[in-house]
Amino acid sequence: MTYCLGIVNCFGIVIAADSRTNAGVDYISAYKKLFDFSVPGERVLLICSSGNLSMTQGVITELRRDIQNHEEVNLHNLSSMYDIARYIGHKSRQIQDRDRQWLERDNIDFQCNFLLGGQVKGEEPQLYLIYPQGNFIQATKETPFLQIGETKYGKPILDRTITYDTPLEAVAKCALLSIDSTMKSNISVGPPINLVMYKADSLVVRHTLELRLGDPYLAKMRKLWEDFVRQAFEAMPNIEWQRETEASVEDILID
Amino acid sequence: MTYCLGIVNCFGIVIAADSRTNAGVDYISAYKKLFDFSVPGERVLLICSSGNLSMTQGVITELRRDIQNHEEVNLHNLSSMYDIARYIGHKSRQIQDRDRQWLERDNIDFQCNFLLGGQVKGEEPQLYLIYPQGNFIQATKETPFLQIGETKYGKPILDRTITYDTPLEAVAKCALLSIDSTMKSNISVGPPINLVMYKADSLVVRHTLELRLGDPYLAKMRKLWEDFVRQAFEAMPNIEWQRETEASVEDILID
Repeated sequence: MTYCLGIVNCFGIVIAADSRTNAGVDYISAYKKLFDFSVPGERVLLICSSGNLSMTQGVITELRRDIQNHEEVNLHNLSSMYDIARYIGHKSRQIQDRDRQWLERDNIDFQCNFLLGGQVKGEEPQLYLIYPQGNFIQATKETPFLQIGETKYGKPILDRTITYDTPLEAVAKCALLSIDSTMKSNISVGPPINLVMYKADSLVVRHTLELRLGDPYLAKMRKLWEDFVRQAFEAMPNIEWQRETEASVEDILID
Repeated sequence: MTYCLGIVNCFGIVIAADSRTNAGVDYISAYKKLFDFSVPGERVLLICSSGNLSMTQGVITELRRDIQNHEEVNLHNLSSMYDIARYIGHKSRQIQDRDRQWLERDNIDFQCNFLLGGQVKGEEPQLYLIYPQGNFIQATKETPFLQIGETKYGKPILDRTITYDTPLEAVAKCALLSIDSTMKSNISVGPPINLVMYKADSLVVRHTLELRLGDPYLAKMRKLWEDFVRQAFEAMPNIEWQRETEASVEDILID
């Protein structure tokens, strides 16, 4: 399994991914799922992947090769984030189509999803989710985050916290907490965690972080969060129960 | 969809359920999913259901009828929680088997799950999850909660909070928050919320609550929780980024 999330707002973009890949529960390994294709000063391009590893690796390899071979269309010469999302979708379709019939007949899930976050000079920062079918959606002011992989455990914290004007450092902490919640609830999501914070219009990636298993920051964050949660419960007003009776147990006992 | 959860610990049991039932997204209605079969002073039996509504209603109706008809085996004369879980599993198998072939051939999901929480006089309080296949598991000291339905959104808060010695009022607040998180992230889970708190060895249900849409307690709880979450982010130590450079954007710009 995998969990990747991206958040875009007026201050920039935060994008994060876990690194655990599993084939069943008895074959677990670590693969980086966050890739930086930026050209400093010109464009920032961050890509996360989830799904069948042979497919996602194929897509990333071909994206890289198209740049190296100076293909007519590649990540570095397309002029808008929209066109880049289309190009990745097209590439993903091609790669999946190549192997589809061999995997499908053995009931192997061949699908893969991508997050694309970044900014091309002259545009606003943008965030896209590219579906296995190659079509895609864009994050908006109303819903500034997108997730792929094991999305549910980490969504409530985003739903309650992230808005279009949440400061970027708080967004980054929230992204870490969202991943930590997912790791705690689903063992198939795991470290190292890769995190990038991109400040709008800087056109360069300055804030990156890799948190390995047992990282002291992660441990500190988890402890602090759990203390806060406990305090919150204590601070919550008592429940006003509907049928509180004054009778003692003995009055009610039948025998 | 549905979300029900039960928690058992040294102080007793908390059990809670939403009331939303949907057939697709365009037919949504409310059905109570928490049923009280207690005999005060003798046994407390709380049952929650999820899954195909025609199946769960069938099971609940037959459980009720077996009591009314004084059947040889019913919820009120079985002598242990374990036997009661087996009986519900058996009943669930029967009901599903009756309709299975008609639903299966039209690809309609006929499965249903149950939570059973309570205490039979002479035993400890116990909590069971009964699977669609009729087999079941019991909550333990290590994992004192069980969930059915849309379980993922509400699990992180339980994972971080609930232990075998968490005070029962805090457990009840946590259960509400777990349901509220799920409602916020999945529109197919919704009010009224039914909540029961049962104090171990009292053998009577004294604390029940039904929270309807827009209930002021729910609104207060949600507001307080979101304020706490924001405070927690502010209190969290700043992230120590790995490649923080002192260079200004202008130094790095290519053109």
